[in-house]
Amino acid sequence: MLRNIKVEHLVETPIEKQQIELVERKGVGHPDSISDGLAEAVSRALCAEYIKKCGVVLHHNTDETQIVAGRSNPQFGGGEVIQPIYTLLVGRATKEFEGVEIPAEAVALQAARDYLRNTIVDLDLERDMIVDCKLGTGSSDLRDVFNRDRVPVANDTSFGVGHAPFSELEQIVYESERQLITDLKKKIPGIGTDIKVMGLRDGDDISLTICCGMVGRHVDDMDHYMNIKEEMADYVTDLALKRTDRNVSTFINAADNAQCGSVFLTVTGTSAEMGDDGSVGRGNRCNGLITPGRPMSMEATSGKNPINHIGKIYNLLSTQMARDIAKEVPQIQDVHIRLLSQIGMPIDQPLVASAHVIPEDGANFASIRAETESVIDDWLSDITRITDMVVKGELDTF
Amino acid sequence: MLRNIKVEHLVETPIEKQQIELVERKGVGHPDSISDGLAEAVSRALCAEYIKKCGVVLHHNTDETQIVAGRSNPQFGGGEVIQPIYTLLVGRATKEFEGVEIPAEAVALQAARDYLRNTIVDLDLERDMIVDCKLGTGSSDLRDVFNRDRVPVANDTSFGVGHAPFSELEQIVYESERQLITDLKKKIPGIGTDIKVMGLRDGDDISLTICCGMVGRHVDDMDHYMNIKEEMADYVTDLALKRTDRNVSTFINAADNAQCGSVFLTVTGTSAEMGDDGSVGRGNRCNGLITPGRPMSMEATSGKNPINHIGKIYNLLSTQMARDIAKEVPQIQDVHIRLLSQIGMPIDQPLVASAHVIPEDGANFASIRAETESVIDDWLSDITRITDMVVKGELDTF
Amino acid sequence: MLRNIKVEHLVETPIEKQQIELVERKGVGHPDSISDGLAEAVSRALCAEYIKKCGVVLHHNTDETQIVAGRSNPQFGGGEVIQPIYTLLVGRATKEFEGVEIPAEAVALQAARDYLRNTIVDLDLERDMIVDCKLGTGSSDLRDVFNRDRVPVANDTSFGVGHAPFSELEQIVYESERQLITDLKKKIPGIGTDIKVMGLRDGDDISLTICCGMVGRHVDDMDHYMNIKEEMADYVTDLALKRTDRNVSTFINAADNAQCGSVFLTVTGTSAEMGDDGSVGRGNRCNGLITPGRPMSMEATSGKNPINHIGKIYNLLSTQMARDIAKEVPQIQDVHIRLLSQIGMPIDQPLVASAHVIPEDGANFASIRAETESVIDDWLSDITRITDMVVKGELDTF
Amino acid sequence: MLRNIKVEHLVETPIEKQQIELVERKGVGHPDSISDGLAEAVSRALCAEYIKKCGVVLHHNTDETQIVAGRSNPQFGGGEVIQPIYTLLVGRATKEFEGVEIPAEAVALQAARDYLRNTIVDLDLERDMIVDCKLGTGSSDLRDVFNRDRVPVANDTSFGVGHAPFSELEQIVYESERQLITDLKKKIPGIGTDIKVMGLRDGDDISLTICCGMVGRHVDDMDHYMNIKEEMADYVTDLALKRTDRNVSTFINAADNAQCGSVFLTVTGTSAEMGDDGSVGRGNRCNGLITPGRPMSMEATSGKNPINHIGKIYNLLSTQMARDIAKEVPQIQDVHIRLLSQIGMPIDQPLVASAHVIPEDGANFASIRAETESVIDDWLSDITRITDMVVKGELDTF
Repeated sequence: MLRNIKVEHLVETPIEKQQIELVERKGVGHPDSISDGLAEAVSRALCAEYIKKCGVVLHHNTDETQIVAGRSNPQFGGGEVIQPIYTLLVGRATKEFEGVEIPAEAVALQAARDYLRNTIVDLDLERDMIVDCKLGTGSSDLRDVFNRDRVPVANDTSFGVGHAPFSELEQIVYESERQLITDLKKKIPGIGTDIKVMGLRDGDDISLTICCGMVGRHVDDMDHYMNIKEEMADYVTDLALKRTDRNVSTFINAADNAQCGSVFLTVTGTSAEMGDDGSVGRGNRCNGLITPGRPMSMEATSGKNPINHIGKIYNLLSTQMARDIAKEVPQIQDVHIRLLSQIGMPIDQPLVASAHVIPEDGANFASIRAETESVIDDWLSDITRITDMVVKGELDTF
Repeated sequence: MLRNIKVEHLVETPIEKQQIELVERKGVGHPDSISDGLAEAVSRALCAEYIKKCGVVLHHNTDETQIVAGRSNPQFGGGEVIQPIYTLLVGRATKEFEGVEIPAEAVALQAARDYLRNTIVDLDLERDMIVDCKLGTGSSDLRDVFNRDRVPVANDTSFGVGHAPFSELEQIVYESERQLITDLKKKIPGIGTDIKVMGLRDGDDISLTICCGMVGRHVDDMDHYMNIKEEMADYVTDLALKRTDRNVSTFINAADNAQCGSVFLTVTGTSAEMGDDGSVGRGNRCNGLITPGRPMSMEATSGKNPINHIGKIYNLLSTQMARDIAKEVPQIQDVHIRLLSQIGMPIDQPLVASAHVIPEDGANFASIRAETESVIDDWLSDITRITDMVVKGELDTF
Repeated sequence: MLRNIKVEHLVETPIEKQQIELVERKGVGHPDSISDGLAEAVSRALCAEYIKKCGVVLHHNTDETQIVAGRSNPQFGGGEVIQPIYTLLVGRATKEFEGVEIPAEAVALQAARDYLRNTIVDLDLERDMIVDCKLGTGSSDLRDVFNRDRVPVANDTSFGVGHAPFSELEQIVYESERQLITDLKKKIPGIGTDIKVMGLRDGDDISLTICCGMVGRHVDDMDHYMNIKEEMADYVTDLALKRTDRNVSTFINAADNAQCGSVFLTVTGTSAEMGDDGSVGRGNRCNGLITPGRPMSMEATSGKNPINHIGKIYNLLSTQMARDIAKEVPQIQDVHIRLLSQIGMPIDQPLVASAHVIPEDGANFASIRAETESVIDDWLSDITRITDMVVKGELDTF
Repeated sequence: MLRNIKVEHLVETPIEKQQIELVERKGVGHPDSISDGLAEAVSRALCAEYIKKCGVVLHHNTDETQIVAGRSNPQFGGGEVIQPIYTLLVGRATKEFEGVEIPAEAVALQAARDYLRNTIVDLDLERDMIVDCKLGTGSSDLRDVFNRDRVPVANDTSFGVGHAPFSELEQIVYESERQLITDLKKKIPGIGTDIKVMGLRDGDDISLTICCGMVGRHVDDMDHYMNIKEEMADYVTDLALKRTDRNVSTFINAADNAQCGSVFLTVTGTSAEMGDDGSVGRGNRCNGLITPGRPMSMEATSGKNPINHIGKIYNLLSTQMARDIAKEVPQIQDVHIRLLSQIGMPIDQPLVASAHVIPEDGANFASIRAETESVIDDWLSDITRITDMVVKGELDTF
């Protein structure tokens, strides 16, 4: 059966040539990202448990973690959480299949605690956070086992979107947070995991405004704090200048007022300890960014089942398609993918698969169209590969 | 002080001329919309309480309601909820001010129950839903009273976006849900409040795919159900044809399989009764729509305080600005507004106020720029008007 | 099969002749009693639902309601709850039986709200209390339907106790609370439902110390409050003097300090609004009293299933037996019954049914023994009558 | 000021000479005991924190832990928890004192988790249990710091009771559980911590019915299980025969049906994993036993503050008094103590301190009275010693 693939020549100023560009990334320790990370960690653990017990992934959606912020009293050299953060894991899971009971909530609880221990490394799970769990069962139809011999049918009428390639600013914003956590934090443990990077490009001037909750027990005093900020700013500026020839300015914790002693200090490295609630799907899209100048989907990618949930599969798939097109099809400046499902139809047959392409000047659009269609069609023919990649943990969701 | 207002001529195919357009609206009874509605109802009630007790709105953010779906056994002519829906109101509120205690959680509870009673009219609050509440206090700085004599400073480095005018499809999708609930439901009580409208325009063909959970006790049998679907489809198609000359097809509950008796029947009119969780900020943007072809912000508008929370104010403001520009400035096809704050700066001084304008062919852009700047500057000069409008309930948030 | 009934002549000073006697009753609005009342209301509603849907009572135990106190700001003529009371209904219930789903949590929620509305009449359920619910399913064996053709087997190795007749002080304490609520409150709405009566008899002097949370909106000012206290004291003393020739003194809210304005005022009539948590089984025994001079069981009677739960049935049964013996068997001053089950044995065959009898001087104990055994044996032969009485709501449990 | 101490000669058959005696002990892993243990562990940790931060114990009561049972799938050699046990710590605590914030909920959480890890040793805290916490603040009066220079005043009109010495059966029941856990479990790890001992003495025949949830992963198969039961029975019988010359029979898990494979196997060693909820104050009295033939108080001792809460102090104190009297005053068979407070009065001035004494035949009661009064008076004069003993962890509460 032919697929409804529409490749359109989009007449639009490419992102790099627009005057103003805005890009944001919420780091792994941001309350919204913690929620995303927990939702996805729980889903992955359930996938593994289902495969172990039943040989196949069963229906679940755990895409609704809610974090209720605590209260804290941060101090240089110490500090303590006053009121623990409360985290509620929410979702649906199949708890019984052909007589086998699946310990969905126990698995979720353990996966969540493991994820937190490994990711939000400055949080003391014994006293700083309560992890609660409410996993219901789904509607009876949805609880049916996903049949492996056929392409699954869409759970909903919904869509996913993706774009490629990343602009300079997008790359810089994404990598800044990643490198601060995976590299610089090893040398400077005072860097908290709750890092928000807001990138603004105004013509050829890039400014990076970074919020980072420093970890009090690793910061001796105000001087030390100021040194860390300086090191971070230099580090990020250096990193950015490897990606761009534009001007770059980096600001760390712009609201600090050192004279008043008012700086962004934390106990646990995340603002969830003090007033910042979090929930799934409110932060980064599945490409790791928030990009108001690009098409975006509102669907949370994290925590949804990777078998038939359009909100997850089509967002991940659109992004993969766009990246492959940007890489493999010549003479393209920007490509945006939108995939729309219809509930009950096989997921490899979207109602429409739309590609908006901004070609380079003078490009041969007929050839672009053909090659783009081909990439899209190939991915749709092999759509369950996305499921496998998710189960194996090969795809990020936020 | 001069404001950093940037009006750009955007070279872009206007939305009406793009081949593919996607627009979605989640109705008031959709679990995500219920969350949005509760979050905003609670915030409004708190504003009123603060004004009553303290003469001024105090700090709060109640933008994190979590709905955990229940289980139900819907039947023609009846049915019952098996497991109640669980709703957790989450957020921050000032609970004490100059010796006055503010009953934040009691106010929230009552506002939530009142909202549900009035909006999700087929839900029995005595047995179908549990309303729980966890409102913490905020960080000490934020709990300070908002000073009325100065422009508030931004709570965060964040942005809001808006666009205007609505395309044909956007109008149709928005009004379809609104009219079904406010008009047709009066005649056909079997229509549930959980209506999701997915609009797809492929060239000049518009298809409207509508999901609506019918209310079992108002639907006698399968024939009755089918009649209601037909009436709804006709009603929506008629409504759409008043807005467009394009072809319109309307599909109601496309996944129904009448022969198997599998149709979208509910007890309460919302799928939250059976497996669909919900949370704030995952559904409609503050203009009432989800529009992947337009710039969007990830910030939840509902439930945030209307004094200094950029995630609320700049989204509402951008939308108001765009609408005024589209109305007042001649020769404009599309306008997109993006406002970026910097934490700690007065909210009337955004880091950048960016307008992307697609002018009509041959328009005088210099004049468009001047008039657009003027509208933007006027709104920024009078930014607390947004606060007043929110407190008075004049602005929708989802 | 013969039953193991042991009737013993107890050599003991009868209660009326002991120097010191202590008797306490927690009224219906005391947080522990609210918990008891909710637990039992939920169990009764489940019994009715099971009978309606399945023709038979199914396994459940809902004997663990937890009340987390709120905060309030009581005022003469008004006041308000600051933080709602949180109530968690806890227990086990059968949720599915031969393909029929039983809406256990929805039934529980509605029963609880109905009970509160009718009993804690000054509480505003829309803003003063959150009712939450966690009803698990039981162990698989216990979920089996209770077979109607055989005597059920004991769920546990456990015991129940009862005594009769009530002493003068026991009667007075019990009736004081009952009459204040059912009679005097009609004339004086300021009387709250949270009334605790502590009776002390020292020889022939009875003192009744009564704590009662007055309802602020029905009490105009301090004078009014003092008048109500006086009326209550007179009312209770009059009531007591109809039951006894001893001296009676009544103290209402002994800790009041009118000069400091420190009196026991509430918004809702129960101290659960301000700091007093409550849970099931911590207050009155099933005879309505706490009597440290009498044998007592620790088992909560409220909320347990009335089919096979020894903690409920044997407490209720012992009390019925003792009352019948006291009424029907001549020459008895006091009788205490203890029934001990063994898990897995039929409930009409207790491991031991022990009666301690204090006969009148010169009584014929052989005849007392025979008649006492006969009453006990008759009740055991007809033990399911207790179940029927519970289901019909004929037996109080606290 | 003279104290109102009443020593009465009780004419009563001493417990050892009554025909029927019933004694029960719920072991540390019984759901009610877990609740008690958590409540007391939290209170002790708060006492320590208050002393560390403020130099004095501040107001708190954490006597309302609620355990909601989970579900499990026990197996010989393994098994797993299907649904985690949910534990809600409930109570009141002072969270702020003279500008110092006290992390009451964080302290509670950590104390609870530490207690569980050390006591319920077969429970996996990462996946088998959720620990949640709701500690409110108390009423403003009660939150006042406890003044160290004066004797505290009673928080309530309430009473405590105690008795001594332990009968043979009481000793045996108490020690059986203690030795099984502290001694035999070291050799036989399959013994679970949830051990309930029900002792019945019928004349000179003692039967001990013991329920013990075995830990599946330490029990290889049914033979192993049966061996463990045999070892336990022998161990307990031997232990009992060191305390009594009466006949002793011991039954372990009487409801087992090995042929059906239905035995009392668990994953975690506590029935809280499968259907048995628990709460504070429903199990053992502060002497470690449930004794329907002895005076008992309904007040939970665990978790209450040890400064002014009569429900804790008077129960512990009565027991200490009774034990000292039984030890120091000659010619006493049994002594029962009841202490009644009046709200607002100093706790060393009870409304009445009543001792019921059963002297040996021919004893000199005048001398007994004098010595008994003296012990009681001495303890009351030194009542804050109870507080110190509690804070130091020297007194058991269940």
